[in-house]
Amino acid sequence: MLKQLRDSYEELVQHTGPKDSLWERLKAACADDWDRYMRNRFVWQLADGSLPHEAYRHWVEQDYIYCTHYCRGYALAAYKAKSIPDMRKSVMTLLTVIDKELELHRAKLREWGITERQIQSLPEANANLAYTRYLLDVGMKGDVLDMLVALSICVIGYGELGRMLVAHENTRLEGNPYRDWIEQYASDMFRDAGVAALEQMDEQAEGLVTPARFDELVAIYRKTLNLDIDFWDMCIDRKL
Amino acid sequence: MLKQLRDSYEELVQHTGPKDSLWERLKAACADDWDRYMRNRFVWQLADGSLPHEAYRHWVEQDYIYCTHYCRGYALAAYKAKSIPDMRKSVMTLLTVIDKELELHRAKLREWGITERQIQSLPEANANLAYTRYLLDVGMKGDVLDMLVALSICVIGYGELGRMLVAHENTRLEGNPYRDWIEQYASDMFRDAGVAALEQMDEQAEGLVTPARFDELVAIYRKTLNLDIDFWDMCIDRKL
Amino acid sequence: MLKQLRDSYEELVQHTGPKDSLWERLKAACADDWDRYMRNRFVWQLADGSLPHEAYRHWVEQDYIYCTHYCRGYALAAYKAKSIPDMRKSVMTLLTVIDKELELHRAKLREWGITERQIQSLPEANANLAYTRYLLDVGMKGDVLDMLVALSICVIGYGELGRMLVAHENTRLEGNPYRDWIEQYASDMFRDAGVAALEQMDEQAEGLVTPARFDELVAIYRKTLNLDIDFWDMCIDRKL
Amino acid sequence: MLKQLRDSYEELVQHTGPKDSLWERLKAACADDWDRYMRNRFVWQLADGSLPHEAYRHWVEQDYIYCTHYCRGYALAAYKAKSIPDMRKSVMTLLTVIDKELELHRAKLREWGITERQIQSLPEANANLAYTRYLLDVGMKGDVLDMLVALSICVIGYGELGRMLVAHENTRLEGNPYRDWIEQYASDMFRDAGVAALEQMDEQAEGLVTPARFDELVAIYRKTLNLDIDFWDMCIDRKL
Repeated sequence: MLKQLRDSYEELVQHTGPKDSLWERLKAACADDWDRYMRNRFVWQLADGSLPHEAYRHWVEQDYIYCTHYCRGYALAAYKAKSIPDMRKSVMTLLTVIDKELELHRAKLREWGITERQIQSLPEANANLAYTRYLLDVGMKGDVLDMLVALSICVIGYGELGRMLVAHENTRLEGNPYRDWIEQYASDMFRDAGVAALEQMDEQAEGLVTPARFDELVAIYRKTLNLDIDFWDMCIDRKL
Repeated sequence: MLKQLRDSYEELVQHTGPKDSLWERLKAACADDWDRYMRNRFVWQLADGSLPHEAYRHWVEQDYIYCTHYCRGYALAAYKAKSIPDMRKSVMTLLTVIDKELELHRAKLREWGITERQIQSLPEANANLAYTRYLLDVGMKGDVLDMLVALSICVIGYGELGRMLVAHENTRLEGNPYRDWIEQYASDMFRDAGVAALEQMDEQAEGLVTPARFDELVAIYRKTLNLDIDFWDMCIDRKL
Repeated sequence: MLKQLRDSYEELVQHTGPKDSLWERLKAACADDWDRYMRNRFVWQLADGSLPHEAYRHWVEQDYIYCTHYCRGYALAAYKAKSIPDMRKSVMTLLTVIDKELELHRAKLREWGITERQIQSLPEANANLAYTRYLLDVGMKGDVLDMLVALSICVIGYGELGRMLVAHENTRLEGNPYRDWIEQYASDMFRDAGVAALEQMDEQAEGLVTPARFDELVAIYRKTLNLDIDFWDMCIDRKL
Repeated sequence: MLKQLRDSYEELVQHTGPKDSLWERLKAACADDWDRYMRNRFVWQLADGSLPHEAYRHWVEQDYIYCTHYCRGYALAAYKAKSIPDMRKSVMTLLTVIDKELELHRAKLREWGITERQIQSLPEANANLAYTRYLLDVGMKGDVLDMLVALSICVIGYGELGRMLVAHENTRLEGNPYRDWIEQYASDMFRDAGVAALEQMDEQAEGLVTPARFDELVAIYRKTLNLDIDFWDMCIDRKL
């Protein structure tokens, strides 16, 4: 049943940028992986409210740790920036994550009686470690564009996912304990962050993307998509 | 004459932190270098307004380039942060530099008809290259404390210098074409940034500084002080 | 049965260095994790020859990929070296891995008809990704000692394991398809590499290890030990 | 007189690779800088033996320090390698420098009674700092190709220079106190290292160099050439 209904998600995706943007070209090159990303169990169970509380809690905790390292990635992009305006873009995205996106996490953690200090000593799941350290390694080994591509799934992809979910008939907002999650990722704030990240990628890519370079970026994009899916699976399975 | 008058600068220095802070301990360990730093020709010629315009212009241009790489250092410190609150501190200092400190530079550059794009293609002086890339290498090779110590001279030292100058009898504010420079570095905004940087260093140093480690940090502090003095000399000599 | 017999492994461990070496102090601080490391199923099934061929093959393939990134870690240690003699030590260990240790892997891969080029396009298991990128992140974020501690488990620990196995009554060398594996890690060549790595750690640690710093290093050591155990489990389960 | 005679150097340059190699294309794009590099006073005074001893000694000392950081650059290239064979190439060049090239330096330093430990505490000239830390920053900020291009001047350029000098009529080998210098850089050992470095650059550049990317690499190549010239001038002027 669920599967059938979801088949229509594509029409609901509000794209973040034009078809010839690097983001959309990478997505098109990884269509199958992207489809698995959009169909992952975790977000659909969030959408209809059926996700077990413990899986959500695991997500909140692990995602808080995830964001710490994710933001280290934007700091690395700022370090690799070729100009002050480009550096500022990376820093602004970093601040959106730690000051705005993580407010949701902090509110939940406060509700559950977990302090910020305690979070830092929570065990980090291996799927989290694999994902975040892969991101950071890509960015350190490569140049600023490699870093931005690896970081893009989270800041652009979550927004596209959120806006799709909020428009989908399978989604139940009323009485859904995860309503704030859905609304956060569907928000204008998150769309704006996505647009900025998409444009930044195009700026940094300008004149540099040969077919061989595009293949390298596709490999990073695909790996990141799959690590994101693995992260959600880890939350559902409550693994460490 | 000048020399004699300046002899009294020590009494006018408003220290940024307590005597047992890492900053003050490093300063005490490099007393001679610190004295040369406080007595450098560039700032005293700024203070009494005798600095040739061309030397000042050279400083504005080179310091704009300097700040680009200096801020890459704070981005690197953010990448190396052990927690979100510590990451936020580095990012806030970075933003103070690019959004506030550089406003002075941008105002001058606009006055002289130089666009931000043009600055990026200005030739970078070797003294600038030596200083900034040394900072970045220290931070990449070492840990976050190495990075913060290397970055401290500029954000804490300039404030102490500015507040000393504004209180010194050799300084002439009225009619001084460099009054805004003096007032910027003597400002509360700059002192606050210095206090934050000093406290961040102490936090990151806690429990980790053996005598051998202190010696390593002294070497970084001393080298940075001297590179800062060289930077000012380069401006006076208008070298590339 | 097996468990009972194994209980005696401790007496058979030939330590790589003196009790007050950093390596032994870290091991003592992580005694429980170390015990799980020495008792892991993978090596004991290798020792008595009961390991399924497919699990071994998965290990050879994944460990080849592992060593690529592991050696990037020694390259990073060389980049962070404070002197040419120290740089040389890291480079020599790197060469031992790629020129000697990997000969075992290459021989097997040739036997199975896999070319070096094909290995590079084999999928990398998430446990591999988590382990190697964690190592590299530790080394990039921290200083050369952090890097050397994270790298130590593999180069020192495998040797201690190999020498223990070859002396243990549960180990069957004759007719064991994995005899060359056991003999490689029990070899003098590997012990020498371990001794060099242990001494290098002590040199770099000299005068720098406060209790708080020791705790940081223990955290790295423990995490690495556990990631190593997870790697072996991944091979037994033939996971990606 | 000297100038006139030198005008013929071009015919004597034995190119390290074919005209369409990245190295030769970069050289052609920086023809004026390359000409200044080949004509620099330091090497021509070495060639005819007129270089003051103190300038040579300054070179030996500073170049020893230089090579320490230069080799950190090859370690960084090894860290950024995409395969074990490519990693091995960077490591082999690193070893050529520290085990072979530096033998010349060590012999001289022994002659002058300077120990390896003393060298490490010699003051580092600012021109040295600017050059080496620029190299390392280029490599850390960019990808492996950026690093290899920045490192190429020294390993390929010195060989072309050495082989040109040895064939030039202005060069005096007999009785020249710097004969071993000239012969080292004109040696087969050094040419082989240059050929390997040139081929490695071409491998890593394959399919990736758009006109915009080429411009980035030209900027790195030109800057490095000029920093190399500045290094020689620093030696002649015996500056710190």
